[in-house]
Amino acid sequence: MATKSKTKLRRMPKRGDHDRRAIAAILDEAPVSHLGVVDPAGFPVVIPTLHARAGNHVYVHGSAGSRTLRAAGAAEVCLTATLLDGLVLARSAVHHSVNYRSVVVFGSAEAIDDPAEKERALEAFTEKLVPGRWPDVRPPTPRELRATAVMRISLAEASAKVRTGPPLDDEEDYALPTWAGTVGLSTIAGEPQPDPRLVAGTEPPSYLRNLAPGREPGR
Amino acid sequence: MATKSKTKLRRMPKRGDHDRRAIAAILDEAPVSHLGVVDPAGFPVVIPTLHARAGNHVYVHGSAGSRTLRAAGAAEVCLTATLLDGLVLARSAVHHSVNYRSVVVFGSAEAIDDPAEKERALEAFTEKLVPGRWPDVRPPTPRELRATAVMRISLAEASAKVRTGPPLDDEEDYALPTWAGTVGLSTIAGEPQPDPRLVAGTEPPSYLRNLAPGREPGR
Repeated sequence: MATKSKTKLRRMPKRGDHDRRAIAAILDEAPVSHLGVVDPAGFPVVIPTLHARAGNHVYVHGSAGSRTLRAAGAAEVCLTATLLDGLVLARSAVHHSVNYRSVVVFGSAEAIDDPAEKERALEAFTEKLVPGRWPDVRPPTPRELRATAVMRISLAEASAKVRTGPPLDDEEDYALPTWAGTVGLSTIAGEPQPDPRLVAGTEPPSYLRNLAPGREPGR
Repeated sequence: MATKSKTKLRRMPKRGDHDRRAIAAILDEAPVSHLGVVDPAGFPVVIPTLHARAGNHVYVHGSAGSRTLRAAGAAEVCLTATLLDGLVLARSAVHHSVNYRSVVVFGSAEAIDDPAEKERALEAFTEKLVPGRWPDVRPPTPRELRATAVMRISLAEASAKVRTGPPLDDEEDYALPTWAGTVGLSTIAGEPQPDPRLVAGTEPPSYLRNLAPGREPGR
């Protein structure tokens, strides 16, 4: 975590494509992110949000009347996405940590007004939530598109931070007989639960089998 | 998510103990949170952080030199913790959502200077990460306590937001033959991975078996 002094900051030896790929991969895997804005009264507001990346932008959306999205309009925002990969158990209290991958994006939120681009963004959100889903859904109407605010933030000022591997203990603590190591965490999907009002005989689509296959534990 | 217009805002009919318990339960279950501050230059900064709750406060910690924690000192902050419980597949694109529980805490970050209170906070962080862990670890030294910044935020201005249950589609869409429903998500812990420098013969402690038992899928 950013507040831990010993977090490993992965600064790619060769910034450029490698960094951009790492940032894209984390944004694509993280199901939710946290969007920070400064309220007109001056205090910070952080809300959980769904996001989708396309090229060198990350998109967020919401109700056109949302107070937070209105505050974000044309203003500086910070979008942070974090994947928790594991627990790090050190021999000393202060070196306990977590393994994680996070991306922090600074930028201004640019409102998307073009209905076609809005619809492409909604496709990206839907496909990110459930890959393969878009062809099955009733597409957005012009009225729905008007009622939806879509914003994009450039990834030009994005950075990734990653911690992996075993704990880093003080040298003299390695002799302690305390168990130390890592415990990987992963996300798994349960059985699909049909809507009680589902049209009788509607079977779960095959793409649900590919959801949240779980990351390799033990990172 | 807060940016979805149809998110169910659970306003408890009887605010008070019930609300406070819901807020505490979400903070206690969420392994990480996102801390928002306003940088002195005026833009928002959101960092992932570990937190621990004790009574009516939530604690965060980090390096005493951390730029973000310095910015947070005595300033207004926003700490948000989110648990993702499931995917919500609606018949229409715009009603796709997620089931989740989140807490947003607004308040000022109050620095803890008393070494004994700092140590109690470190105990709370350690026990939150791995319940049962504290008695096994080498406790913090006075020097480590000085190098660690600990801050607390009152839960007086905290609120919880929860979405559960099936999708909410437009009435005319319920006749569509599209599969709709929810897919629960849960977090599972992998096998403990011993540190390569572990003292030979050190067995994993029994409390590791109780980690991340997974939430009930299908919420």
